[in-house]
Amino acid sequence: MTTIIDGRKIATEIRESLKEEVKTLTSKKGLVPGLAVIIIGEDPASQVYVNMKRKACEQIGLKSFYYPLPASTSKEELLKIISELNQNKEVNGILAQLPLPKHLDENIIINQIDPLKDVDCFHPANIGKIMLGDEDGFYPCTPYGCQELISRTVPDLKGKHLVVVGRSNIVGKPMINMMIQKNKRANCIVTACHTAAKDISYYTKQADILIVAAGRPKTITKEMVKKGVVIIDVGVNRITDPKNASKTKLVGDVDFEEVAPLSSAITPVPGGVGPMTITMLLKNTIKAFKIQHGINL
Amino acid sequence: MTTIIDGRKIATEIRESLKEEVKTLTSKKGLVPGLAVIIIGEDPASQVYVNMKRKACEQIGLKSFYYPLPASTSKEELLKIISELNQNKEVNGILAQLPLPKHLDENIIINQIDPLKDVDCFHPANIGKIMLGDEDGFYPCTPYGCQELISRTVPDLKGKHLVVVGRSNIVGKPMINMMIQKNKRANCIVTACHTAAKDISYYTKQADILIVAAGRPKTITKEMVKKGVVIIDVGVNRITDPKNASKTKLVGDVDFEEVAPLSSAITPVPGGVGPMTITMLLKNTIKAFKIQHGINL
Repeated sequence: MTTIIDGRKIATEIRESLKEEVKTLTSKKGLVPGLAVIIIGEDPASQVYVNMKRKACEQIGLKSFYYPLPASTSKEELLKIISELNQNKEVNGILAQLPLPKHLDENIIINQIDPLKDVDCFHPANIGKIMLGDEDGFYPCTPYGCQELISRTVPDLKGKHLVVVGRSNIVGKPMINMMIQKNKRANCIVTACHTAAKDISYYTKQADILIVAAGRPKTITKEMVKKGVVIIDVGVNRITDPKNASKTKLVGDVDFEEVAPLSSAITPVPGGVGPMTITMLLKNTIKAFKIQHGINL
Repeated sequence: MTTIIDGRKIATEIRESLKEEVKTLTSKKGLVPGLAVIIIGEDPASQVYVNMKRKACEQIGLKSFYYPLPASTSKEELLKIISELNQNKEVNGILAQLPLPKHLDENIIINQIDPLKDVDCFHPANIGKIMLGDEDGFYPCTPYGCQELISRTVPDLKGKHLVVVGRSNIVGKPMINMMIQKNKRANCIVTACHTAAKDISYYTKQADILIVAAGRPKTITKEMVKKGVVIIDVGVNRITDPKNASKTKLVGDVDFEEVAPLSSAITPVPGGVGPMTITMLLKNTIKAFKIQHGINL
């Protein structure tokens, strides 16, 4: 029997418990945790994401501060806004939706946002803390969501062979670093494999847990996994619907139809990792609030 | 035929070329790169290491600034000295020899030393840069030395399976992050294995390149490797000399006598990784000088 890991359901459960936590924190401190969301320009996909994030904040009782800026925003204007948000005590987390317009360098954001408010985990110091296993930083939202799904699916992770396909800075690399740490939500033997491999199936076939963040549909087919594997599919690819050429559909990096029957558990796309990402952003914002107010984590 | 990787010889070659580089930089800038070395207390091993580092600086023409502090040094005094060194333009790199006396927290050093002068790579922001593949930071000296030995021994690393035994913050974790990057000195498929594995030989037997930083003699025996493997032994263990019980000797983590014949190349202990560590500290100090003076790396 294959378990389809229901990211929507798990995300909803976590958001319910975060809502309770926000209530408790608010009544204890008389303050509401807040997230500032900056969006520059009119990219439609970015607007969809930003609206989802703002709505998610409202749903669990977080304040959201909205900064829609014109595409013509200068570096100086952006730096000034971020500086003000760094100072603003009502704002506990700051995120700037990527991508930025071409004239703005992402490093502006990375280096300007106060690491204590860096809920997207872009600052090198927060990245460094992942590697060091220092729990005082943040985890990037997507790998954090994957870890949550994994630890709910495989309660005893010690010594499991976890294989990560893909080495991006936002998914693959943090994932590896999170999963080798000596703690209950990790402690795996981790293999990081990527395009330089002659044959990635040599590695993927060994996986007890397989995380795929390659950015290409059908990166993983049925010959490439062992029976009983747990699969976390991070891919989001829009393809022509094979059943109707006039439509498109979303698929992951795994050939779900043929691989799912071999797996013991697998995330679908959509409805797997996706809903977890914003949920972990909410969790990071609450964590930022607690750190800034000296509340035990 | 097994190549014994001669760390002493390679270190000497690198130091010769660093000496030339220091000459060039000095004549171009009229300034000599400088390293400040802080030692607190009288730990004999620490004194040996510090003297080796100071001597190595002199040999290649770097200035070394020596701060031997009493074991009773307070946190405030230490912070003040580090702040002064952060400001001092003659000092390009700062290192504080570990371990510190018990009343002093290592985090003082980690957080106080200017990341631009952090030639031991302790600051989380420099650690983060390793993961991100950002070449503007530093690499910790021991894994940096290992990478140098590996890239000289295996010129084409692309897609090689590199297995790291041990997940310490100073060797195993940075090593993994350095070796998965997409560059000529890395680009390996990397497996991070450690004490949580039921059977580490399952992983070590797959290694084209095996890095062992486990801190225990005979962690790797002949049954645990495949023929032709390249082995980098980071271990330094003092044991009773099996040939003379009244003496001690240094050994690595690999059972050298039985494993060496199976390998295509292997580092001895002593004389393998050891001599590289201080060499890479010198290299980091020169890099720090270049960064601080806006010279292309």
